[in-house]
Amino acid sequence: MGSVQHVISMKPFSRQQIESILDLADSFEAEARGEKKSDLLAGKVLTALFYEPSTRTRLSFESAMVRLGGQVLSVADAKKTSSVWKGETLEDTILTIANYCDVIAMRHPQKGAAEIAASVSSVPILNGGDDANEHPTQALLDLLTIRRERGTIDGLTVTLVGDHAHSRVTNSLLFGLANYDVKVILVNPPSLAVSRETLKYVQDKGLSVEETSDLAAALTKTDVVYIFRIQKERFEDPEEYERVKGGYQLDRAMLEAAGREITVMHPMPRVDELSTDVDDMPGACYFRQSFNGVMLRMALLAWVLGKADLD
Amino acid sequence: MGSVQHVISMKPFSRQQIESILDLADSFEAEARGEKKSDLLAGKVLTALFYEPSTRTRLSFESAMVRLGGQVLSVADAKKTSSVWKGETLEDTILTIANYCDVIAMRHPQKGAAEIAASVSSVPILNGGDDANEHPTQALLDLLTIRRERGTIDGLTVTLVGDHAHSRVTNSLLFGLANYDVKVILVNPPSLAVSRETLKYVQDKGLSVEETSDLAAALTKTDVVYIFRIQKERFEDPEEYERVKGGYQLDRAMLEAAGREITVMHPMPRVDELSTDVDDMPGACYFRQSFNGVMLRMALLAWVLGKADLD
Amino acid sequence: MGSVQHVISMKPFSRQQIESILDLADSFEAEARGEKKSDLLAGKVLTALFYEPSTRTRLSFESAMVRLGGQVLSVADAKKTSSVWKGETLEDTILTIANYCDVIAMRHPQKGAAEIAASVSSVPILNGGDDANEHPTQALLDLLTIRRERGTIDGLTVTLVGDHAHSRVTNSLLFGLANYDVKVILVNPPSLAVSRETLKYVQDKGLSVEETSDLAAALTKTDVVYIFRIQKERFEDPEEYERVKGGYQLDRAMLEAAGREITVMHPMPRVDELSTDVDDMPGACYFRQSFNGVMLRMALLAWVLGKADLD
Repeated sequence: MGSVQHVISMKPFSRQQIESILDLADSFEAEARGEKKSDLLAGKVLTALFYEPSTRTRLSFESAMVRLGGQVLSVADAKKTSSVWKGETLEDTILTIANYCDVIAMRHPQKGAAEIAASVSSVPILNGGDDANEHPTQALLDLLTIRRERGTIDGLTVTLVGDHAHSRVTNSLLFGLANYDVKVILVNPPSLAVSRETLKYVQDKGLSVEETSDLAAALTKTDVVYIFRIQKERFEDPEEYERVKGGYQLDRAMLEAAGREITVMHPMPRVDELSTDVDDMPGACYFRQSFNGVMLRMALLAWVLGKADLD
Repeated sequence: MGSVQHVISMKPFSRQQIESILDLADSFEAEARGEKKSDLLAGKVLTALFYEPSTRTRLSFESAMVRLGGQVLSVADAKKTSSVWKGETLEDTILTIANYCDVIAMRHPQKGAAEIAASVSSVPILNGGDDANEHPTQALLDLLTIRRERGTIDGLTVTLVGDHAHSRVTNSLLFGLANYDVKVILVNPPSLAVSRETLKYVQDKGLSVEETSDLAAALTKTDVVYIFRIQKERFEDPEEYERVKGGYQLDRAMLEAAGREITVMHPMPRVDELSTDVDDMPGACYFRQSFNGVMLRMALLAWVLGKADLD
Repeated sequence: MGSVQHVISMKPFSRQQIESILDLADSFEAEARGEKKSDLLAGKVLTALFYEPSTRTRLSFESAMVRLGGQVLSVADAKKTSSVWKGETLEDTILTIANYCDVIAMRHPQKGAAEIAASVSSVPILNGGDDANEHPTQALLDLLTIRRERGTIDGLTVTLVGDHAHSRVTNSLLFGLANYDVKVILVNPPSLAVSRETLKYVQDKGLSVEETSDLAAALTKTDVVYIFRIQKERFEDPEEYERVKGGYQLDRAMLEAAGREITVMHPMPRVDELSTDVDDMPGACYFRQSFNGVMLRMALLAWVLGKADLD
């Protein structure tokens, strides 16, 4: 399978590859908005294979495919509707589904599932999230968003707020940011810190990482703040959740108090960790961020299907 | 959002707009039958966002889109598979999904949901039913059906039979019929009468409305009878349901007894309120009615996407 | 409905028709691999109507349709999301859905459902499995697989292993094989023998059928072995299942002991009836078999939609 281009993890991506992908994504803006018709992927078929339902990630991949003239086969909830319940292995499922299409975007509840899929697949696998492990297409669209919002990634201080212990987005984004000259601040309750393995990996690559639980202080030196949901279920003690959650919520007053021009990102969906009173601040870019996901996935599809070269 | 053309309610439609939409729908007949290929909406993307499953309405919208050369993203059961269960607001969902497509057809179990969606959406919202409130695309396809079956809408007596208290179809169709010179007879159990608000609205516009619970008598002066299901669950007393339901069922004998050429409509699915012995009567048009839905939704999609002007 | 070409059962197919369909299927190989773009079915619409979820059969039909330039409407789990639960008859559902598309591929949990659908449908019905009755598109792809793997069907000994009492694949494949000069060995527990009706039908057509429960002995004279899953639920006595199941499992050692060049087929998904140590034997063709399904369904779609003639 050596010549098939999968996207499983952010670790293998070089800075130059990332920049090329972001350039390619930018080039698809008119097509992503439906203002320009494309036949680049005409005759090509994507299977969206989602073992966990995720309307937004699935639709983002599917939109990217049809915006480039391709076609989509959709499995919105593979756990309920597929052969999985009959005891089939993931390898068999992938070997079969690869017969129906040219590329597979998958989400799976087990860490390493995308790697297993790639090990047997004759068509490219795009990892749309494998448990708390990695979510490389999200990391790439986040990098695209930072670059589009700030004009550059280098030189910024990027603050990530939330449950970093269980976040595939944190892992993948840190692996991506490690290619840039940025300072990262991780804000989280002490019990929900990023894995020591991820931390060591990016620090060995030279990334500056600070860990804290003081969001207000972090904001005073932040250019980009990226906030995730902290799930109540992650706490053994529900009372501890109630005690700490306020420290990881963001609103307009906190952003104004920081006295800086701050870009605000969120992977969505949000519940109460990000106040809607932020929505009309100029730095609030989370809906643009979700649009950027379509452009970014167009770039990945064009690349892995051999229809676009990276510089 | 002022320049985006949504379809939320039948109230804003003028007679001239309705007639133009029906003309446009008629013009798509060959394409709707798959006899003529169209690229009118090539490069355009519809999201079918159904918070309540409705195979028939969803497929009707999707068929309309692909028959005109467009593409479809499909959320067949948003309540189960989307972010809704994570507590996301409808506004956030719409702001995100609008990034993936050019138009959204939605069904939602809450009255007013389509209006909320339209208030934030950058792409047209087509209301595919919001609880017992409105179902404008159904009303338009019903008007198309009456016009195609009878050659005209003016001058007819249209009898609607069923639970008008909980029917979005009744509301929307009455708002539409109020633009025509028709007599309407509403047949229903007294406890399931149309809302006084809807009744006052259409009477103020000059619509003639008679309310009765005597179906047989109504049929003797009816040109078009449109029958809905009465759901047992709407009755507090199950015995009352059993007692009255026979009065709101239609069969061949009743139609023949009326001694008139009557057009018979039904929104489908039917259970026992409409006997299959009606199916081969010349006036039985409910399957043509469902075909008309494709043409009508083609017209709406072409219109809201700026690919067809109304006269 | 006389002029509509349905595919409900393998019984009506002549040898010449089968061979023509297989030839047509072979001709679509490049398109099925996504190496060649086709517009043969541009403007045509397939509805995949699955009352039982079957990711693989549904995606195979859908892939076939989009590979030929057609479009797909998808109902992945009609029992849960459709009007069925509202009590609608299958006839009404089909009469409605036929208004949305040009061809319907359906799976249904009731024997004879496809026949009922065909009796009212104005568009072709492709039976994708109706309970334990028939699965003609599977039988045709199995015949295609045998012909592609062995160069011929005539003259072979084909051994079918599993629960033949509840297998629609056994029924349909036997009806198909009865057109060829083959010997069939059925290996099964005595309580799970093929129906006497099916057996009589194919024997009357001249098919040689031997029934046994000794897989090892059968393999010594077998050219093609086709193994199915035996479901535990089919046994009244769970202990009997545990006692016999080992006799209906296939692995590399058994195949090597037979001392022949044996083609190994499986409809997938597999659990433990077919060992993965068979996968890299040259005769193991079950993943090629699933690819053949796309080509075969392309041929059927092109044929029933009038875009290809059979010789």
